Amino acid sequence: MNQRATPNVLDAFMKPASIAIIGLSRSAIGSPVSIHTTLVDLGYPGRIHIVNPNMGAVPGASVCRTIPELPEPVDLAIISVERALVPGTLEACAARGIGAAIVITQGFADSDAVGAGLQAEMRAIVARTGMRIIGPNTVGVVNAAARFSSSFIEVAADDLPVGQVAQSGFLMMGHHLVTNEKAGFCMAVDLGNACDVSLADVLRHYEAEPAVSVIECHAEAIDDGVAFMDLARRITRQKPVVMLKAGRTEAGQAAVASHTGNVAGKARVAEAALRQSGVILAENAEELRLFSKSLATFGAMKGRRVGIMSFSGGGAVLAIDALDRAGLELATLSPATIARLKHLFPDWMEVTNPLDIWIPVARDLDTAFPLVMQALQDDEGVDAVLCIYCSYNLPKYARFDAAGHIRDLSAARRDKPVACWSYGQDIEGFTRRIEERRSAIVYPRLDDAARALAVLAGRAEQVARGAAAPAGGGPDLSAARRAAGAILDRAAAAGTGYLFTEAFEILEAYGLPPVPWTVVRDDDAADPPAAGLRAPLCLKIDSPDILHKSDVGGVALGLGGGEALAQGICALRATVARNVPGARIRGVVVQEMAARGTEVMIGMMRDPSFGPCIVFGTGGIHAEITDDFAFRVAPLSRQEAREMIAETRVARLLAGARGARPADLDALADALVRVSRIAADHPAIREIDLNPVFAGPDGLHLVDARFLLDGHGAA
Amino acid sequence: MNQRATPNVLDAFMKPASIAIIGLSRSAIGSPVSIHTTLVDLGYPGRIHIVNPNMGAVPGASVCRTIPELPEPVDLAIISVERALVPGTLEACAARGIGAAIVITQGFADSDAVGAGLQAEMRAIVARTGMRIIGPNTVGVVNAAARFSSSFIEVAADDLPVGQVAQSGFLMMGHHLVTNEKAGFCMAVDLGNACDVSLADVLRHYEAEPAVSVIECHAEAIDDGVAFMDLARRITRQKPVVMLKAGRTEAGQAAVASHTGNVAGKARVAEAALRQSGVILAENAEELRLFSKSLATFGAMKGRRVGIMSFSGGGAVLAIDALDRAGLELATLSPATIARLKHLFPDWMEVTNPLDIWIPVARDLDTAFPLVMQALQDDEGVDAVLCIYCSYNLPKYARFDAAGHIRDLSAARRDKPVACWSYGQDIEGFTRRIEERRSAIVYPRLDDAARALAVLAGRAEQVARGAAAPAGGGPDLSAARRAAGAILDRAAAAGTGYLFTEAFEILEAYGLPPVPWTVVRDDDAADPPAAGLRAPLCLKIDSPDILHKSDVGGVALGLGGGEALAQGICALRATVARNVPGARIRGVVVQEMAARGTEVMIGMMRDPSFGPCIVFGTGGIHAEITDDFAFRVAPLSRQEAREMIAETRVARLLAGARGARPADLDALADALVRVSRIAADHPAIREIDLNPVFAGPDGLHLVDARFLLDGHGAA
Repeated sequence: MNQRATPNVLDAFMKPASIAIIGLSRSAIGSPVSIHTTLVDLGYPGRIHIVNPNMGAVPGASVCRTIPELPEPVDLAIISVERALVPGTLEACAARGIGAAIVITQGFADSDAVGAGLQAEMRAIVARTGMRIIGPNTVGVVNAAARFSSSFIEVAADDLPVGQVAQSGFLMMGHHLVTNEKAGFCMAVDLGNACDVSLADVLRHYEAEPAVSVIECHAEAIDDGVAFMDLARRITRQKPVVMLKAGRTEAGQAAVASHTGNVAGKARVAEAALRQSGVILAENAEELRLFSKSLATFGAMKGRRVGIMSFSGGGAVLAIDALDRAGLELATLSPATIARLKHLFPDWMEVTNPLDIWIPVARDLDTAFPLVMQALQDDEGVDAVLCIYCSYNLPKYARFDAAGHIRDLSAARRDKPVACWSYGQDIEGFTRRIEERRSAIVYPRLDDAARALAVLAGRAEQVARGAAAPAGGGPDLSAARRAAGAILDRAAAAGTGYLFTEAFEILEAYGLPPVPWTVVRDDDAADPPAAGLRAPLCLKIDSPDILHKSDVGGVALGLGGGEALAQGICALRATVARNVPGARIRGVVVQEMAARGTEVMIGMMRDPSFGPCIVFGTGGIHAEITDDFAFRVAPLSRQEAREMIAETRVARLLAGARGARPADLDALADALVRVSRIAADHPAIREIDLNPVFAGPDGLHLVDARFLLDGHGAA
Repeated sequence: MNQRATPNVLDAFMKPASIAIIGLSRSAIGSPVSIHTTLVDLGYPGRIHIVNPNMGAVPGASVCRTIPELPEPVDLAIISVERALVPGTLEACAARGIGAAIVITQGFADSDAVGAGLQAEMRAIVARTGMRIIGPNTVGVVNAAARFSSSFIEVAADDLPVGQVAQSGFLMMGHHLVTNEKAGFCMAVDLGNACDVSLADVLRHYEAEPAVSVIECHAEAIDDGVAFMDLARRITRQKPVVMLKAGRTEAGQAAVASHTGNVAGKARVAEAALRQSGVILAENAEELRLFSKSLATFGAMKGRRVGIMSFSGGGAVLAIDALDRAGLELATLSPATIARLKHLFPDWMEVTNPLDIWIPVARDLDTAFPLVMQALQDDEGVDAVLCIYCSYNLPKYARFDAAGHIRDLSAARRDKPVACWSYGQDIEGFTRRIEERRSAIVYPRLDDAARALAVLAGRAEQVARGAAAPAGGGPDLSAARRAAGAILDRAAAAGTGYLFTEAFEILEAYGLPPVPWTVVRDDDAADPPAAGLRAPLCLKIDSPDILHKSDVGGVALGLGGGEALAQGICALRATVARNVPGARIRGVVVQEMAARGTEVMIGMMRDPSFGPCIVFGTGGIHAEITDDFAFRVAPLSRQEAREMIAETRVARLLAGARGARPADLDALADALVRVSRIAADHPAIREIDLNPVFAGPDGLHLVDARFLLDGHGAA
């Protein structure tokens, strides 16, 4: 992630006073598929220079044969020469004093080894000259206010205060949910292969850009997750960031790798990390646009209680299902609201939420409709209005057209979002009329409306919490860090790749002692020093060559002390030696079996982008089928640890199912924080697996631990 | 569910030769909101009679003052008089020889007690006169081919071979996903409160109607689930049935109750039963339409392998995510396909699925586009084509317009569905041109396209299986039925509401013996007859007043035999007597504790609509957090039992996790079949709860059983 960017570094790309188009063919003048045509259509007010040795005169542009002949060092070069010529062209631009270039040409890290080599050359030019590059493999930028775009296909000029940044151009081309939509953003950047200007650079630009109040991202891979999280945490305190993370499946990730030349982070870790840093996640391209539009349109939604007014009883039932799925609530109308509306309805109709407005509206639209909507807006128990209405053909059904009321009433009270859904024969016209003042939105589907309202409510909650705070404070573990470092150095010196007893020692150093244990080395076998341990006991083989001990007979349970223990140790060693010939046996761990509580697991893995990630969830054999895991990037705050526990299903068992005493959740949260510190303190530890951990009312009982070290494969 | 219907019974509603409109105001003539106007606009060819004492002459219609004065006994009366007048109007219609009526008026079982009483009167008129009624609280019907509708709002005439039946009128009003859509069906019925003509009646009509090849349902409640399942099993062998089940949440169900005057069945049972009978479930109104349209447009989709051609690499990545979510596969292109296409792409581009067609199309659309699509259509490893393409404004970008190719190539080879998704500035026009020949569909979202293709593949699999077969055959359990009947009679005579030891006996009679057990009654306490049981043993209190034994100290584990057992029994009785003063203690069950295996649960509950429903899933304490349950309506076939096991997550443990031996799945499936027979044979048993059942390699170990009898509440 490039750190040189300043908030205004992208100004040369977004509002250049002069540009050079390099690689424009003669046939592109006047052709619809042409950057030049796009600029003419937008009315770009800057100076256009075309570099082409064979081009004749072009009205409104200066033409020159070569880059050195350019009459001025333009703000921005737009390059679409064939790929082999790109590095030379960039060098020439730098030599002419041009500080920014958009490279449209394809066939770099998105393709083969030759292309990857060319992209490396481009990075070298950036490093050497300080020139900034967007692309290659990009459509470039659009900025409606500056009437500028590098797109060779027309783009719509819109003033919605949404800034878009994407790893693909298709979102910039417009993706119109209903045909009256314009672009859906006021400025956009297609990062392409991102050889220089990165997602973070564009985010910083939008952070400082007053025209942007909502940031919309499409990302297939996030290169430096740690830096991204820091940045996202900061930005989301001021402006909401909505992201569509593409390439979420294994197959999708493979395609991402070939598409952008990057490797996508593991999808679930990335999603957890993005949420942790305050980013709002969209499920698909449509949600990306609808969430952004909603955040740019509406003020805060103070709670999750929704009042429904529907022209159709059947539609209202579907709306309730949608609210429920989105985690919203059906508002309870106040007695005052009911009293205010009662006279509109026949005696036999109950006045309740959802309000079935067919009869009042059929009697007198212009009296009933505004009264109902205003009553919902005025009710303190209603945080947003969901309005279902038929979109009739006009002028035939002008008597039933509520669009003007919805537009004006929503504009009059912007503190309560008015979300609409429509059926019927002119949804397009109905939507256009309602959205004229950008005060209400007609959503294509009820689920869209509900999920967008949930995003508004969630954003308000996020702002109230002070956005996502990074981890800080916590216990002083500097001594633990030193002690663990010494243990790891010893293991490294011995060439050990997997830690068992050393893991127990590191956990002890970090204040997480396992259930009482000792280790019997060869010499002690005849007289095991386990006198201090209380039976029943279990035995576990200690071998650097055996990761899954029970699979090879390396675990024995339920032993007494004394002679039985000595015999058990002999038997265990013999069994393992038989099952894994040649395994180095360092000894046998003897441990108490008193652990009681709910089985959970605590783990850590390192994501190539986001770094150490803590995993918590259902443990034991059910871990495999419950798929009940919460993820967070380390280090964790106590608050984050508590949140990740609460988001698992095993939390219900920990709270005390069937009258059982609840587990000690403070101890559990503390353990998660401490494990996250082990992970943050010791990059040499690649993976941690504590499973099962028994979480009881009396605290945690750690019975097993596996640490894998860097550079060693799993057994 | 009315059984009198014959396949043509609804012809009077759908294609009446003559109608009487009763309740039409004078102002409705020429008004846009008027049945009369709708009929005039549609060009209804039948005879229209208007009954109104104050109406003047109406061109094209006969007017009379009263029903007896009607010049002919019309095929159909359409009634919108105020609710109190409805029964009298229906009586007069019957007296005039009219056999069918649509009652549009609201305010019956959908409202208050007065309305419910009026609806009961209507049902009595149906029973007495044989008249058939659609409604009340309905918009009625539309049949485009007959140019007939009872709607007072205009409806679109469409020839898509979809028949719609709904419990609400809004779906009939049109619900247009893109603005060029017409109705989306060729005929539709709004059941309203369904006082007579039911969902089943309309399904039977569409079953026999040649113009309908796909049936689309919106249902809030299904009254007689058992009869519905029989009917759906039969119909879905011939025609696909797609259903949107509304009121799926608790809140939604409450609204359904007030909306239609019916009580919705429990959502999950209903969904399982609908799938079991071959119905395709839609998640929302948009899916209902898109699935129906897809089934009506495309031929069979032979497998789940999808070839993607995309104008945008970024779009292709999103498409892969969508396919994965929908359970589809990315096709592997054959070497022949790759060889055929290689020359279209630059050397540095790999020719693989997804195919990024930007460069070939930019070079020469009319050569490259058809070649790519045909190559995918010809590849035997590709079952459907997903095409992502930008919808450009025309005529400006005519050079890039692929709509004609998509339309013609999909029409030429209808054995492979062509699903499209588009972005850009004229999705409407692009869609209209592609869908002209009804050979391809442009889906509003990639997830829609993927889910619709999955429905097509699922439908082909369903047809191949011979549609959903009802249960049949199975073990001869007539002796068991008699034995269990005697046990239940005994319990009923004793006034017992909850069975424990009797449940053990019934299970034994049905060939499902629990783990060896005996019961120690008062008299035996000093000398327990448990000699035949092997320690360790457990004790469970047997009391008709105690349903949850362990909550009151009514369970003791790990006892030896002899004196310890006798003492344990005394202690258990004393504990329970202390904790539940006054509880009737019938004895103490002594049982072996040898059970080993994976904990599962087998249950049965009775749904008010669908009857006995079997539940299988994760057992023990994890049942509460895994929410891992499969549902099926009883009785079950062996095949259905195996399917329900396979659909749970605990199936992965049963298959033998971590090298454990797999559980005996035949024994488990057999047990589900036998429990389903107990449920089917004995309606007096309201609920069965076998939890946990240990499923091991050596068969099942039933350790506990609770049967609740009808008329008794849960303790």
